[in-house]
Amino acid sequence: MSMKIEDSEVDIVIAALCPNLTSFLEEWQPFFSRFHLIIVKDPDLEDDLQIPAGFDHQVYSKSDMERALSGSSINFSGHSCHYFGYLISRKKYIISIDDDCHPARDNSGALVDPVAQHITNLQTPATPFFFNTLYDPFCQGADFVRGYPFSLRNGVDCILSCGLWLNLADYDAPTQIVKPNERNTRYVDAVMTVPIRAMMPMSGINIGFNREVLGPALVPGLRLVGEGKRRWETVEDIWSGMCAKVVCDHLGCGVKSGLPYVWRKDVDAGNAMESLKKEWEGVKLMEEIVPFFQSVRLPASAITAEDCVVAIAGMVREKLGTLNPVYVQAANAMEAWVKLWKAVGSSKV
Amino acid sequence: MSMKIEDSEVDIVIAALCPNLTSFLEEWQPFFSRFHLIIVKDPDLEDDLQIPAGFDHQVYSKSDMERALSGSSINFSGHSCHYFGYLISRKKYIISIDDDCHPARDNSGALVDPVAQHITNLQTPATPFFFNTLYDPFCQGADFVRGYPFSLRNGVDCILSCGLWLNLADYDAPTQIVKPNERNTRYVDAVMTVPIRAMMPMSGINIGFNREVLGPALVPGLRLVGEGKRRWETVEDIWSGMCAKVVCDHLGCGVKSGLPYVWRKDVDAGNAMESLKKEWEGVKLMEEIVPFFQSVRLPASAITAEDCVVAIAGMVREKLGTLNPVYVQAANAMEAWVKLWKAVGSSKV
Repeated sequence: MSMKIEDSEVDIVIAALCPNLTSFLEEWQPFFSRFHLIIVKDPDLEDDLQIPAGFDHQVYSKSDMERALSGSSINFSGHSCHYFGYLISRKKYIISIDDDCHPARDNSGALVDPVAQHITNLQTPATPFFFNTLYDPFCQGADFVRGYPFSLRNGVDCILSCGLWLNLADYDAPTQIVKPNERNTRYVDAVMTVPIRAMMPMSGINIGFNREVLGPALVPGLRLVGEGKRRWETVEDIWSGMCAKVVCDHLGCGVKSGLPYVWRKDVDAGNAMESLKKEWEGVKLMEEIVPFFQSVRLPASAITAEDCVVAIAGMVREKLGTLNPVYVQAANAMEAWVKLWKAVGSSKV
Repeated sequence: MSMKIEDSEVDIVIAALCPNLTSFLEEWQPFFSRFHLIIVKDPDLEDDLQIPAGFDHQVYSKSDMERALSGSSINFSGHSCHYFGYLISRKKYIISIDDDCHPARDNSGALVDPVAQHITNLQTPATPFFFNTLYDPFCQGADFVRGYPFSLRNGVDCILSCGLWLNLADYDAPTQIVKPNERNTRYVDAVMTVPIRAMMPMSGINIGFNREVLGPALVPGLRLVGEGKRRWETVEDIWSGMCAKVVCDHLGCGVKSGLPYVWRKDVDAGNAMESLKKEWEGVKLMEEIVPFFQSVRLPASAITAEDCVVAIAGMVREKLGTLNPVYVQAANAMEAWVKLWKAVGSSKV
């Protein structure tokens, strides 16, 4: 099952929400320099980007988006500009890390290479059908625990790798206000497959995925009315993560969560209160979104991620559309996204 | 949701498969001495037990089993003698640790108190309905990640805590033969809820549970024809773990896996080859057992663990009984066990 992923098959996508990427890229140089970087500039950002020398990269900005969109109404502002990188890439794999992240250190103090770990996660199988108590059986020094059926030990292709973060935990605005000084210091040395039918809150901070198989399921679908530029002011990644999980389950592929970690910079805590107004909307929507995605069952006729996303969009409109207009917009965006994905994919870029 | 568990509500159950418990108990003294110990002697063991002074304990042996059984055909030999301790206890909680285990050390070199950790796991809620990417949200310094629905944050009662083990990984005999020198050295500092409907291979080496709610689901059901005295020669704990998981899911309670670790002693690797003949039977049966337990749906009329175990026994007889006589015996044992549990529970011991 496990196959070797070549460096040339990977694009690293970086969304530039701030203009100066110098210290960010210099810090990541040891891990990023072997790869092609797709740097996507937030379309709301006016200033020119500052990018240090020595990186094989391409910058995409508002004019590229407008050209590619040709009338489609996808909104790439803020963190959603990541998705433009996923769209425009021609590689089999994407690794995406937020521009407020630094390299993390493991329990022994060594710097963590998140690119290598995402690649490991994606090139070894996932095991969604039965839980292995000693975590990823494909890690060095690990295996399947007694009682694990041999027929399930081949596993399935892992097509989504969700990494974690130290320091600033990815809490929502209310939790951030209640615990302004809480920092995540627990480095958990494990990778695990998220079991089939279990839904999880994927964060877009630090992920890797098989673009060829799963790409269109990473979709800029749900945009909050008052969405801001901070992670805790958005739920677009949570939405697209559940969409991706449902698609993986349906296609018989797997999702891993755990290593690699990145280290997230502190932010001004005072902003959380302001953000609460914006994200309160997202917090309320989750009460409808989670049961919805838990109930999604896709038709056997859906055999690609594109098919699945279109089918989910139809269910969103039907089951959630009457509750809130943001869901109708999400359904529209998902359908527009699949069209765009197909159009860009068939064009010569 | 979280409630304080008192020391007086806990029994520690130790199955004595070897007569000399001196070094075992002396090593565990710092963690065990506050609790009442139920020591159950393997009925096949001839020699007298050696137990050091200073422990509040009670020993149960073959004659106690015969008296309690009064004609019932439950077989308590080997590791199954643990179950006699679960039956005879009058406490709300049980913690059970194999007699080939030593205290483990965490990543900082500190000795791990598995009793305290099992108690923590059992007195804080489980969250089976949605996966929290930063592991147990009730651990110190942790919380629910952005996107986790607030309506699910109260969680449910955790009634089963499955601990792990360092050094000798709990592999089956074939894996043990293939990797005779592999040792588990990875201390993963995490506890997590096993999601609803996900089945896992519970090992009986190191567990804690709420006896009052879940007790009868920890059942000595499946006994292999050639069952031996080593863990890798048995699947009784795997069977009872899946039974317990199905019951927890049905009763709306949770199962945690992860911390605490214990350190398992090496064994003579040469024995694995001999054991392979015995456990090959178990390995083959897992291919039938896992899909069976994944398919079990219990009727709403089953409102206690007793009800659930009787219902599962009926399904075992119906769906698995024709495949292999061991399943018919398992169904019979499960029904006999529930009767015995009720009889012992209502008697004045």
